[in-house]
Amino acid sequence: MSTPPPAYSFGMIGLGTMGRNLLLNLADHNFGVAGYDKDATKVDLLAKEGAGKPVVGFSELAPFINSLQTPRSVMLLVPAGKIVDSVIAELQPLLAPGDIIIDGGNSHFTDTERRAVALEAAGLHFFGMGVSGGEEGARFGPSMMPGGDKEAYRVVQPMFEAIAARVGDEPCVTYIGPGAAGHFVKMVHNGIEYGLMQLIAETYAVLKTGLGMDNAAIGQVFTQWNAGRLQSFLLDITKDIFGFIAPNTDHLLLDDIKDEARSKGTGKWTSQVAMDLELPIPTIDTAVAMRDLSKYKALREQLAGMYGPAAGQLSVDKDAFLAQLEQAFYFSMAITYAQGMQLLTKASKDFSYNLKLDEIAKIWRGGCIIRSGFLTEIFNAYQKAPDLAHLLLDEQVRNVVSTAVPGSRAVVAAAVTAGLALPGYSSALSYFDTFRTARMPSNLIQAQRDYFGAHTYELIGKEGVFHTQWTPEHEDAANKKDVEVGQEVKTEKPVTPNS
Amino acid sequence: MSTPPPAYSFGMIGLGTMGRNLLLNLADHNFGVAGYDKDATKVDLLAKEGAGKPVVGFSELAPFINSLQTPRSVMLLVPAGKIVDSVIAELQPLLAPGDIIIDGGNSHFTDTERRAVALEAAGLHFFGMGVSGGEEGARFGPSMMPGGDKEAYRVVQPMFEAIAARVGDEPCVTYIGPGAAGHFVKMVHNGIEYGLMQLIAETYAVLKTGLGMDNAAIGQVFTQWNAGRLQSFLLDITKDIFGFIAPNTDHLLLDDIKDEARSKGTGKWTSQVAMDLELPIPTIDTAVAMRDLSKYKALREQLAGMYGPAAGQLSVDKDAFLAQLEQAFYFSMAITYAQGMQLLTKASKDFSYNLKLDEIAKIWRGGCIIRSGFLTEIFNAYQKAPDLAHLLLDEQVRNVVSTAVPGSRAVVAAAVTAGLALPGYSSALSYFDTFRTARMPSNLIQAQRDYFGAHTYELIGKEGVFHTQWTPEHEDAANKKDVEVGQEVKTEKPVTPNS
Repeated sequence: MSTPPPAYSFGMIGLGTMGRNLLLNLADHNFGVAGYDKDATKVDLLAKEGAGKPVVGFSELAPFINSLQTPRSVMLLVPAGKIVDSVIAELQPLLAPGDIIIDGGNSHFTDTERRAVALEAAGLHFFGMGVSGGEEGARFGPSMMPGGDKEAYRVVQPMFEAIAARVGDEPCVTYIGPGAAGHFVKMVHNGIEYGLMQLIAETYAVLKTGLGMDNAAIGQVFTQWNAGRLQSFLLDITKDIFGFIAPNTDHLLLDDIKDEARSKGTGKWTSQVAMDLELPIPTIDTAVAMRDLSKYKALREQLAGMYGPAAGQLSVDKDAFLAQLEQAFYFSMAITYAQGMQLLTKASKDFSYNLKLDEIAKIWRGGCIIRSGFLTEIFNAYQKAPDLAHLLLDEQVRNVVSTAVPGSRAVVAAAVTAGLALPGYSSALSYFDTFRTARMPSNLIQAQRDYFGAHTYELIGKEGVFHTQWTPEHEDAANKKDVEVGQEVKTEKPVTPNS
Repeated sequence: MSTPPPAYSFGMIGLGTMGRNLLLNLADHNFGVAGYDKDATKVDLLAKEGAGKPVVGFSELAPFINSLQTPRSVMLLVPAGKIVDSVIAELQPLLAPGDIIIDGGNSHFTDTERRAVALEAAGLHFFGMGVSGGEEGARFGPSMMPGGDKEAYRVVQPMFEAIAARVGDEPCVTYIGPGAAGHFVKMVHNGIEYGLMQLIAETYAVLKTGLGMDNAAIGQVFTQWNAGRLQSFLLDITKDIFGFIAPNTDHLLLDDIKDEARSKGTGKWTSQVAMDLELPIPTIDTAVAMRDLSKYKALREQLAGMYGPAAGQLSVDKDAFLAQLEQAFYFSMAITYAQGMQLLTKASKDFSYNLKLDEIAKIWRGGCIIRSGFLTEIFNAYQKAPDLAHLLLDEQVRNVVSTAVPGSRAVVAAAVTAGLALPGYSSALSYFDTFRTARMPSNLIQAQRDYFGAHTYELIGKEGVFHTQWTPEHEDAANKKDVEVGQEVKTEKPVTPNS
């Protein structure tokens, strides 16, 4: 290890691969960095990997904190949950007003909000920062989404901009917004990621089962797609996966992997929060549900036996269908991003995050898991119209999405007919078709709710809330009603909301 | 009012329509009942409606409590949330050990769990009881789902069995399980309700837009369906709604109602909890999302303008298609119930509710909003096999569902092609097709997660958890990896779970 500078610019608590890699990345950009972990073997690893760089490791907290320049910047990369709280509790007495704590894990944004309020009240600054890009990204350029006090951000800004992924000259990091804005945006990033991964998995099923293609041919399709307008990190790694032979065999490692998908919860959070905000993201919801469903392997095998035959090849012209499939993927991908972006719009309003959606699209173009060529379209759309209510309203997006719709219809219809499951593709299309419906059949739902639960309804072109006694059955009940047919009523919170 | 008996058998706090109706129902069955409300006008209403019955009303709490036989049974029908807690706090000092508090509102089951623990520790019994059937049901026979202490249930059992809806000789009430089991089951009931209502609304859209039928003809279809195997309360009221002329007009009231659906949150809770339990209920999720989407009326109108033309008539033979539509509805309805029932199975296990799914299906056959002929199939399935892991595993269900699948494929494919949105129908079908897939494409998701986040994967036929360095790119990174290609690793909680 080189002679350390008298004080270090940045401290890291938690020296797992991600934490070590971020420190090495900073050191490569000439920032002196200090790491802390209770586990001495990880401290040793940092020392070994950081040999020759301005890096120092500690297994005790006080000397680690004392090694940092003030105002101190201390980042946590520890498992989300209670551990974050206990680390903060240990840390807080050692810090001075103006110091900055950065939580770089995937904490739930409500925890971040709570911690930010408590720490800002104590004179400290707290950042919830989403970091995307995995271990590789941490080491050579992640996409980072910091949220917290805007003034305090200036302290860490030069460091984050130095180590972030770059697209052209632009670093993939920007100040996201106050409070938990950074963690919220990272959560939605992950929700979009769930959606895109589900779409790629379904595409694999179409190519393999629906078109009967072998792995080499499937890999070629992903390679071609990734060279065109579908270019993305996820397709890029998919192409690699279709080139990876299991050691000492002649087949893909992919074929040996169990088809039970795991998850860490951020996709689920996205869906749950969207429901709280009453903002529909059904394609992301579907991706979450399908990961869960995949785990019921034994049940799937039983049901396959009972409800066969299994889906077979589609009766389609293969070349024409592949062109339609490319359209369908493009369309469904666009819809998935659009759902996530609308969720950001809603959260920005409800939580006063004042998000800049163009900036967010910009920093997602590099370093992160959902980076893709399409993010340039998204960036352009929100740069032209920062308050765009929905991505599909953008003229350029309309042009590209409209031409892709017929492919989506052809693919979904063929799969539905053949019994091949495309839940993500189907959901994207039905979301689109619902959203372009000026008059939905939801008037019937309101009539039903008023019928059985007196939940009232609204009328077209007439202010107020109304309740109707829909049936004369049981005169007793009808007589006791407080209101007449179609009479305006003051809404009263029903005591047992039945729906 | 008749001379009151020396003491009353049952007390009600909250004399809205539901509370009053339940008391009148009890009084009709010769139970002396007392009601309490701070609002004296509601107490007066109870007195008026209860004239000639053993009913008494109070606007002060202490005399109300003192009028009750011990052990006292006091039910709350007040808005869910903090009000329940504050009423309990007022009530508790007035009660004695062994007394029973029943929360009959739609409280979140986690609140019920918390209250039950606190009150049982204080020697009181606490029941969370789902009540379904609306105002009409409360007055003439609801379906009731009480959860709490099993011994204490004996006190209220005769009263609840007397007033419940009946199917044949069977009352639509049964002891559900300990703790919050009753409120959990009611929540899932409502989730199923959301799903079924969405399916009926989509059917309306198919008949109206897809087949170009007028309201009279649409009403006839619902009437016919309701006379056959699709018989249900929701179709029954739908048929009525299609017969209800707006006062002083010549058209249906339905046509004047806004197409923006509201909700009270229980459907949302069902989806959120299902995600926590990692149990897929995508058709219910979709119903929740579509209610939310319906509220974006202005945006829908804009998108309709941009992404037209609107869905038009389907190019199908109408009579043949109507038969397929009946199949499709039957299929989608069965799937919706199946998702809800599997959620109950999972919750029963995870929360030790020890639910009897046959009993639950039995009490849902009458009084409640989701009562239907199909619940007899569900009852039979779980009576034959109490531990049935999924409704679709039942042989009789398989027989009826299998014959309905082709109709579902035809309807969804036609709608997808025509641009007519059927999100619920589509979701039910893709759920089914996914669940009958022995080998899902989720192995690719696991490979991707391991590629970008080192989240590891499992191998077919080999114990353990594995990680692979998928790409030789960036030798630095590859060299520092702790594990080799395909080497078994101990899973270590990743510090920044990227998915």
